[in-house]
Amino acid sequence: MSSNGKVEKVIIIGSGPAGWTAALYAARANLSPLVFAGRPKTVPTTILPGGQLMMTTEVENYPGFPEGVTGPKLMSYFEQQAMRFDTRIVTDKGMTPDVSNADDGHSYSYHDCKRVDLSKRPFLVVGEDDTEYHAHSVIIATGATANWLGLDNEKRLAMSGGGVSACAVCDGALPVFRDKVLGVVGGGDSAVEEASYLTKFASKVVMIHRRDQLRASKIMAQRAKDNPKIEFAWNKTVSDVLGDDMITGVTLKDTKTGEQSTMELGGLFMAIGHTPATEFLEGQLQLDEKKYIKLADPYRSTTSVEGVFGAGDCVDSVYRQAVTAAGMGCKAAIDAERWLADQGVE
Amino acid sequence: MSSNGKVEKVIIIGSGPAGWTAALYAARANLSPLVFAGRPKTVPTTILPGGQLMMTTEVENYPGFPEGVTGPKLMSYFEQQAMRFDTRIVTDKGMTPDVSNADDGHSYSYHDCKRVDLSKRPFLVVGEDDTEYHAHSVIIATGATANWLGLDNEKRLAMSGGGVSACAVCDGALPVFRDKVLGVVGGGDSAVEEASYLTKFASKVVMIHRRDQLRASKIMAQRAKDNPKIEFAWNKTVSDVLGDDMITGVTLKDTKTGEQSTMELGGLFMAIGHTPATEFLEGQLQLDEKKYIKLADPYRSTTSVEGVFGAGDCVDSVYRQAVTAAGMGCKAAIDAERWLADQGVE
Repeated sequence: MSSNGKVEKVIIIGSGPAGWTAALYAARANLSPLVFAGRPKTVPTTILPGGQLMMTTEVENYPGFPEGVTGPKLMSYFEQQAMRFDTRIVTDKGMTPDVSNADDGHSYSYHDCKRVDLSKRPFLVVGEDDTEYHAHSVIIATGATANWLGLDNEKRLAMSGGGVSACAVCDGALPVFRDKVLGVVGGGDSAVEEASYLTKFASKVVMIHRRDQLRASKIMAQRAKDNPKIEFAWNKTVSDVLGDDMITGVTLKDTKTGEQSTMELGGLFMAIGHTPATEFLEGQLQLDEKKYIKLADPYRSTTSVEGVFGAGDCVDSVYRQAVTAAGMGCKAAIDAERWLADQGVE
Repeated sequence: MSSNGKVEKVIIIGSGPAGWTAALYAARANLSPLVFAGRPKTVPTTILPGGQLMMTTEVENYPGFPEGVTGPKLMSYFEQQAMRFDTRIVTDKGMTPDVSNADDGHSYSYHDCKRVDLSKRPFLVVGEDDTEYHAHSVIIATGATANWLGLDNEKRLAMSGGGVSACAVCDGALPVFRDKVLGVVGGGDSAVEEASYLTKFASKVVMIHRRDQLRASKIMAQRAKDNPKIEFAWNKTVSDVLGDDMITGVTLKDTKTGEQSTMELGGLFMAIGHTPATEFLEGQLQLDEKKYIKLADPYRSTTSVEGVFGAGDCVDSVYRQAVTAAGMGCKAAIDAERWLADQGVE
């Protein structure tokens, strides 16, 4: 099924801070962008509409909101702003539905994109209902997902602001974690970074790791060991998260003996990596060893395929903040606009 | 005069989107940042407090504000948010004054920084009253200033939203410029980019250039010539900007004959370059040929001096948007925090 032979100027895949900012800038540049905003668990690409902030209660560090703002509210503002200009969204009710009450729920469903063919221009983007769209340029802003343990209580407390988080930089400074004993799940460099960061606020940080030594680099492992506020729970996995409205502790399982124990905690931070939503790009675009999109010029948004631009957490394994993702979305739209002008696409 | 021998964890120089975002992230990381917010025309560094947005009436493209926001209001939000955490500002009334009404004017003056010595650690930062401050790390976010013609009427109309601007990407899409004849002052690559961009909205764009051919690269000059909506006013400079509340035209002076003429215009865009506020860094830090700070790793914020980080328009000659600057400010604070942890500074 083909979408009437029209070639879009730019298709944006993703609807987190990077995707909406790219849409805002592209729309203001009269490129009339078409956005695949994604849907959880529909087709293989599985972009979470709104991105990871949809799982965040209080955002204190997106600049411009002195009192803070909830993640879903912030993403609704982003979306409304992009839609104020000529942004179109692919949904089951057609394009450009009314999103003015997006934060109160939609009467329609966004469409995810199923696959892309970036091997020739115009590029092909296939929607989840198999409609084919063509575009002169594509901005990929599909994000990344923090890896979670997959426990029901973990998810429940993470989504309700109950002291479970996958981002120490985002949430560590919240008052609820002050002078508490905090757990960090993981043993790599990032886990040590998160644990060190949390010692600024916590009375103590316990690194919970499935093995008997850290997987982190020597220097990072040493830093963790030298920090008097960091302790270790070796050979342990978290088998449950305890607490009603707020975490009170975890159930640990010993990976050697299988023995169960409980540990009291005032907060729990996941640091077991992220998975960029780039599976659908395998073989189409250069990815790095961790499957993040490799930028052709790290200062810009260009990728290994001319006319394809990357932005947000799917290109960023380092910072992963709403404002850094938004900045990259802006860059991608400006790069796309200039590239299209180079190509004579008006 | 020395500031009591204390060594700050991080000093931030600059108070635009990059500076305040760096302060926000540094403060939330318990680094208790000290900010030199600058003052117009006091000491050689001359940072404009709040940055270039202070000269902007309506900001439509900073994501998170669907209805738009004024530049000064937005910067006041940024400042208040940084101050909500443990950010300190150097002023003539001491540090950490009440900024909750910053947008209504302060009862104190910010201090600019006069000079820095980055040749050894801890770094030295000297305030405008000659007080010496020392810091383990420094984030430079002093911005850049668009070059203006220096005409009174130009400044008046630029500051009142009267159709004079130095940023086509920021302002070109505003309704006031639709289907108008717009002037672009300049003849370089950026001027062509701005002119091309404006043809999306304008009925016609006139490039006003002091010479009889563009200074732009061949390919860009050709693009301008090929664009049916772009015309040229060769050998002309703008000697005055006409209009009361809104620009109505300009007075042109012929650079060869000296002859004066007037041209009706519905908008005027400066594209005669930017000057990064980096004079005070000459010989201290690697700058590029246009005097922008050279990043050691273009994906990060590290500079040629370990412990010194750069963010915002003083490192960016390409995008120059509030949200890209804010993203870089975030990166700089995260980089500084991790670097300080590496150095054992808690």
